[in-house]
Amino acid sequence: MKIRDDNTIAAIATPIGEGAIAVIRVSGAEAIRVSDRVFVGKKKLNDIEANAVQFGKVFDATGRLLDEVLATVFKAPHSYTGEDSVEISCHGGVYVANQILEELLAAGARQADPGEYTKRAFLNGKMDLSQAEAVADLIQARSEKAHWASVGQLEGKLSEYVGLLRSELLRLCALLELELDFSEEGIEVVERANVKKGIDQVQAAVDRMIASYAVGKHYRDGVSVVFAGRPNAGKSSIFNALLKENRAIVSPSPGTTRDYIEEAVVLGGVLFRMIDTAGLHEATELVEAEGVKRAKSKVVESDIVVVVVDAAESLSRADALKALEGLKPVEEVIIAYNKIDLHPDLLPQSIEFSFNGIQGTEVFVSAKTGAGLDLLTTCLMESVADESGVGPMDFRITSRRHCDVCDRVTQSLSRALSSLNSGMTNEFIALDVRQAIDALSEITGEITSEDILDVIFKEFCIGK
Amino acid sequence: MKIRDDNTIAAIATPIGEGAIAVIRVSGAEAIRVSDRVFVGKKKLNDIEANAVQFGKVFDATGRLLDEVLATVFKAPHSYTGEDSVEISCHGGVYVANQILEELLAAGARQADPGEYTKRAFLNGKMDLSQAEAVADLIQARSEKAHWASVGQLEGKLSEYVGLLRSELLRLCALLELELDFSEEGIEVVERANVKKGIDQVQAAVDRMIASYAVGKHYRDGVSVVFAGRPNAGKSSIFNALLKENRAIVSPSPGTTRDYIEEAVVLGGVLFRMIDTAGLHEATELVEAEGVKRAKSKVVESDIVVVVVDAAESLSRADALKALEGLKPVEEVIIAYNKIDLHPDLLPQSIEFSFNGIQGTEVFVSAKTGAGLDLLTTCLMESVADESGVGPMDFRITSRRHCDVCDRVTQSLSRALSSLNSGMTNEFIALDVRQAIDALSEITGEITSEDILDVIFKEFCIGK
Repeated sequence: MKIRDDNTIAAIATPIGEGAIAVIRVSGAEAIRVSDRVFVGKKKLNDIEANAVQFGKVFDATGRLLDEVLATVFKAPHSYTGEDSVEISCHGGVYVANQILEELLAAGARQADPGEYTKRAFLNGKMDLSQAEAVADLIQARSEKAHWASVGQLEGKLSEYVGLLRSELLRLCALLELELDFSEEGIEVVERANVKKGIDQVQAAVDRMIASYAVGKHYRDGVSVVFAGRPNAGKSSIFNALLKENRAIVSPSPGTTRDYIEEAVVLGGVLFRMIDTAGLHEATELVEAEGVKRAKSKVVESDIVVVVVDAAESLSRADALKALEGLKPVEEVIIAYNKIDLHPDLLPQSIEFSFNGIQGTEVFVSAKTGAGLDLLTTCLMESVADESGVGPMDFRITSRRHCDVCDRVTQSLSRALSSLNSGMTNEFIALDVRQAIDALSEITGEITSEDILDVIFKEFCIGK
Repeated sequence: MKIRDDNTIAAIATPIGEGAIAVIRVSGAEAIRVSDRVFVGKKKLNDIEANAVQFGKVFDATGRLLDEVLATVFKAPHSYTGEDSVEISCHGGVYVANQILEELLAAGARQADPGEYTKRAFLNGKMDLSQAEAVADLIQARSEKAHWASVGQLEGKLSEYVGLLRSELLRLCALLELELDFSEEGIEVVERANVKKGIDQVQAAVDRMIASYAVGKHYRDGVSVVFAGRPNAGKSSIFNALLKENRAIVSPSPGTTRDYIEEAVVLGGVLFRMIDTAGLHEATELVEAEGVKRAKSKVVESDIVVVVVDAAESLSRADALKALEGLKPVEEVIIAYNKIDLHPDLLPQSIEFSFNGIQGTEVFVSAKTGAGLDLLTTCLMESVADESGVGPMDFRITSRRHCDVCDRVTQSLSRALSSLNSGMTNEFIALDVRQAIDALSEITGEITSEDILDVIFKEFCIGK
């Protein structure tokens, strides 16, 4: 597959469903001519100014009226894709929009692939690759923090930061290579201590980016919280209380929840996907056993496990953690001792613990009275808010791809430093610095491959 | 509630969901000023031309960037509503669009009510009432015929026809009232035969409109087809065969389908909602009984009932129709004798019948081999295609409201005719003709009440 494709493309750009308006986007060298074949207004779209809207009608091949529409003309390079484009705004509804799209396809356009508009915007230099990725994140954002992270990246905050690091490495590289030119004369132009200082500074910045991913991934993708524990401990009651709705059926009989139930809630601007499960225990019958199996797989996939314990049955940390045996990797563990309303001696509180290599927090709560639930909520929020090492950076790395690049930069710079320390020639050092520069360029897409583009843009929706 | 409300309104006009683009509409005297409070572009929206698009950014009250957007300015009366309007096209996604809407509301707009944009378009004379109703129908259209009916009405075909009838009645009225002025002098200006002829012509046109509703309501709302009959007759097999997919679970054991299943399919451009049921029979256990109860209520609500019979069990019309006893109103009945593949003497065919006051069609089919299914499909299509009495009209009445108006026009004209025949004075006759004119005016909304408007527009989606 070639990177560039000069076809004129068309797709419905608004969500599928009934609404007042649907928008169909046409982009490419023939966009205006193709649109003019189905659009009849006072003027041809070819004859109106760029960035102007024109009222008109769309007819099918048999001359039947499909809809009354507004068409907006954008001319290259002043459009989203950087190509000539037309946006046709028609009456919402699945049938009408699809019919108009069909006419555009019959008139010479090709159905756009997922993300193809944004891919063209990137290839035409309208945005860099990290900004293009931010477009998909922005569309999918469901919380304040997800929005903040994606819109900042779209604005170019990540690109700018990466650009500064790249410039600094290029400067160091130039110094190293400058000396190469003079190496035969044996003149040392650069103080090696200065090069080392420069690399250290860049590495410190890259470390901050990597540290920010621990938070950033949760901003973008949300946090999965699994409620596990023995039957009848009150998992569903706590789940419902945190969601502030009666989502899961609760009953006094053990084993009420069989399959898992997932609901989203935003806490402190971050999306939490709460997952109530059948619990972790020896199951006696088939449906129950399937429920326990699913609960276990959810625990393994989750970001946080809340082990719910009936405070009347046990207050033993060891007992509570036994439920997680064999379930790796479990990173964040919270033990919630429930039903403290039945024990006048137990007060709502949260205690950090370290036990058999597991770091976690114990929280004493009552789903019934609500006591301690604020502590549990705080505990959940704090477990994704590890900003140590991020510093005053006004963005977060949110994508695995960017974090991988940072890891490769770290490897290259670390090789460069050790070459420097062991007195290797500038040639060797410059080679590793160049590799770090190339890696950084992958974030913004100065250096990229069709494979990477394919992976990135296939995640987009059609019409974007 | 007053009809007019001069507030500036805002709403998301695209369907809710993830898409490339979401559009937020602002309309009202303050639309441009309100939008300028949240939009920052090269120019103020207030300073750009009408029908021009401007790129810019939307910030929240704390100065945080929400999104990069395109804003299009429309100036009264050249907009959808006839008021000053702004359309803000932002990145799709639920969060972003809602945040921008929140900012517009904080900046002085009010959340629009369902259908409020179209209601304003009507009140500002941008379209008449029947055209406004067509907008909702067009958005909801899911078939070619539904689209054809709604887009024709939006174009004004119904309005034009009603306008002609109204003009003719006004002409007759003027003649009748003209004579009143001369009545003291005893001069007969109008030939009563001519007035009668005029009324007859209008009535004939109104009759055609009423006749068209029989088809038009199915164009707009689709046709519900219920499959009923004894267990194991093959209802689900025929249902699946017509849908061309394995939607309902079929098995050789009777009573496989318990609850009803509904799926849509378009035949001959008309949407058919096919409903497979548990069947109509004496049920022995609780779940089965509930299934039969639901099947019966579906039969009563449906447009067409297909009674499926196992041809091996019975070929008796009386037996088949017994299942429908006590289920009124059942209008269209089809008896499908299934499994003819097991009977070499039975051929696929369809036969019209009249039995105990029920008109219907018998069709011999095999869901297994597909024999006769084309006849069944034709039979379904023909049962909604009764165009007798419609004539060469290029629209169909699709709304109960319009049909009710036509009924009232008929009543008034019939009173006028009988007054005419019994030699009443022109004064009396003119009164009834005036009533017919007023009734017709309700279709296009020259005469209307806030109650009618409320009923019509509350069915719209928000943002339209």
